[in-house]
Amino acid sequence: MPQPASRMQLVQPSAIRELLALAADPGIISFGGGYPDTSLFPLPELAAAYSSAILEHGSVALQYAASEGLPRLREQLAERMRADGVDCGPENIFLIQGAQQAIDLAGKMWLDPGDIVITEEPTFLGGLVGLNPYEPRYRAVRTDDDGMDPEHLEEVLRANPGAKLIYTIPDFHNPTGVTMTLERRRRVVELAREYDVIVLEDAPYRELFFGAAPLPTLKSFDTDGRVYHVGSFSKTLAPGIRTGWMVADAEHVERLALLKLATDTQNSTLNMFAVSRYLEENDYDAHLDRIRAHYRGKRDHTLAALDATLPGDIAFTRPEGGLFVWLKFPDGVDTDRLLREELIPVERVAFVPGSSFYAEKPLFSRGRLGFPTLPHDRISEGIRRIADGIARTRSA
Amino acid sequence: MPQPASRMQLVQPSAIRELLALAADPGIISFGGGYPDTSLFPLPELAAAYSSAILEHGSVALQYAASEGLPRLREQLAERMRADGVDCGPENIFLIQGAQQAIDLAGKMWLDPGDIVITEEPTFLGGLVGLNPYEPRYRAVRTDDDGMDPEHLEEVLRANPGAKLIYTIPDFHNPTGVTMTLERRRRVVELAREYDVIVLEDAPYRELFFGAAPLPTLKSFDTDGRVYHVGSFSKTLAPGIRTGWMVADAEHVERLALLKLATDTQNSTLNMFAVSRYLEENDYDAHLDRIRAHYRGKRDHTLAALDATLPGDIAFTRPEGGLFVWLKFPDGVDTDRLLREELIPVERVAFVPGSSFYAEKPLFSRGRLGFPTLPHDRISEGIRRIADGIARTRSA
Repeated sequence: MPQPASRMQLVQPSAIRELLALAADPGIISFGGGYPDTSLFPLPELAAAYSSAILEHGSVALQYAASEGLPRLREQLAERMRADGVDCGPENIFLIQGAQQAIDLAGKMWLDPGDIVITEEPTFLGGLVGLNPYEPRYRAVRTDDDGMDPEHLEEVLRANPGAKLIYTIPDFHNPTGVTMTLERRRRVVELAREYDVIVLEDAPYRELFFGAAPLPTLKSFDTDGRVYHVGSFSKTLAPGIRTGWMVADAEHVERLALLKLATDTQNSTLNMFAVSRYLEENDYDAHLDRIRAHYRGKRDHTLAALDATLPGDIAFTRPEGGLFVWLKFPDGVDTDRLLREELIPVERVAFVPGSSFYAEKPLFSRGRLGFPTLPHDRISEGIRRIADGIARTRSA
Repeated sequence: MPQPASRMQLVQPSAIRELLALAADPGIISFGGGYPDTSLFPLPELAAAYSSAILEHGSVALQYAASEGLPRLREQLAERMRADGVDCGPENIFLIQGAQQAIDLAGKMWLDPGDIVITEEPTFLGGLVGLNPYEPRYRAVRTDDDGMDPEHLEEVLRANPGAKLIYTIPDFHNPTGVTMTLERRRRVVELAREYDVIVLEDAPYRELFFGAAPLPTLKSFDTDGRVYHVGSFSKTLAPGIRTGWMVADAEHVERLALLKLATDTQNSTLNMFAVSRYLEENDYDAHLDRIRAHYRGKRDHTLAALDATLPGDIAFTRPEGGLFVWLKFPDGVDTDRLLREELIPVERVAFVPGSSFYAEKPLFSRGRLGFPTLPHDRISEGIRRIADGIARTRSA
């Protein structure tokens, strides 16, 4: 075979895939996935939406559509984003094949090999996986319980003139569960403007808030079209319909749509049409309230079990939304090894080792605990197993 | 704003988009699109498939799935490809978001900037659009009524050592409608092996044959996994479900799936599940027979009208399948200008000017006539208008 493109060196199966494959055994309690709970899928409502899309509107819903997305759904999403404080119209909405595609298309549009991308530390593994084919150099910015640290961001921007992209997950971060404060949101956008960088605001968990409504989007502080906000129906309706959206400057949407035309022509017209019908015919906000209550219950149960069970030197975040708690073991603990040698084979419990989530220097003493799909009793039992495994390691 | 990636210089709105926008006026008879006829969409059958997927299998059909695609659909497609003479199993089948995505992912996997891609002359515009972001250099190989000329291909391969990819549409070519002969198919694969090049066999029209079953795929002559065969349900079920597939070496499928994970995670599980249900519950081959008969009728009508109406110095192809006839005007005719100045504004008829379909030096005396969506009387009337417009230009 000929030589593959040089970028293929950066496209490798991740170690966590392999580790989580071990955890696929149904006897193992896995906190590994970020999959939504299938019991929350609104089946009859979606079935009705697809049925009406096909039987009543099939000649539109099954035909090709514009690369930017179905016009009616762009209007509906613009309306929802306006209600969320973003000044936008349908021309700013771009339909994508799930939030992951925003990462690919942003990379395709902006990155030449060697360009600087700034990520949070830690960051979403899929963000790195999506950008790697564009061969960027990463610079990671410190985070704490208030999200990305703008002082460190400014240092990094000053040290890396010409940086292209800041990738951030301000709401209920993956993997940490942390929320960026209001003041930091404002400051990150201000710095992006000052240093002329694009901001990719990845917000797939935004609608899964457990307390008050979430803080304003970074996009809402954008004055010159440099923030791309990314939303998704994957966690709120269903991932299998692959429907996400970007909110961006209208001219950028046109260029992104040309890239999408080249990449996969368009989103599934039928999926877009059915989501549009679903929004038209149902009270989506009431559905969101139900799923928030459901995941809030799991979050509460998870935190209570962690409080009651984990040794005091293992810290963890207290997310106000989303699907993940971030475990912080004392320095020196290697969670890859802990999982591989103790938790998976002996205790039969798994989470995602933290080392996968770093663009620069990995921390091995971290772990991502995802609670969305487990029933309460399995959550308690799983956390007890983690604590038992740790206790055994310590007494050894 | 920062500088976009250098590849963005190659991502431009095409002139034909602009020209066809002029032709969107419903008073204009447009032979422009390659859209399938919506009257052929099997609406009740698709509605039943989606309904059962959602209501009976929702927890699988709406959840995330593997990047390679839904296992059951991979099996079904492997079985269909075996029946079409390709030695393959489910591990060789890779589900993609329409055939366009095969072009993007092949580019992503194989092309560094400046790498040589060999196309047919003319070739599918979407092929060029999909590969352009990977900044290849194109070399075009002569075609005639028997498809790509293997002697010229060999010359080009010899002159371009290290060429990476041959892009070909052997069945009912877009834009020419031509079919590659059996001997040439064999020879193209042989040359690819000899010169160590990947072959991308784009076959979205393959199942739309009007006579005998189509010739063996290029993939069927592949002995070492260098041919990627690409199929699609867009022209046979519906484009709005964005379901296509690749047949490739199993190891290549794994690497392509990692790229897909990075690009858009996966195809819509629901669309894959519903297509799988559709194939399970219906006689797809009987459906294919119906649509073949339908398009054959339009092809016959189109050729009869062209025979009866066009001046003798305008030649055209006689496709044995697919959706397109290729018009060959005498040298010196510029179809861009003919359309812009005469046919669209005065005669109110449009086709796609041929100049868009060339990777190297465009021929301006060609045009693509797509017949899939027009009723017979509009086909006759449209061809009469083309002839009238030409007559007026000649008498001026």
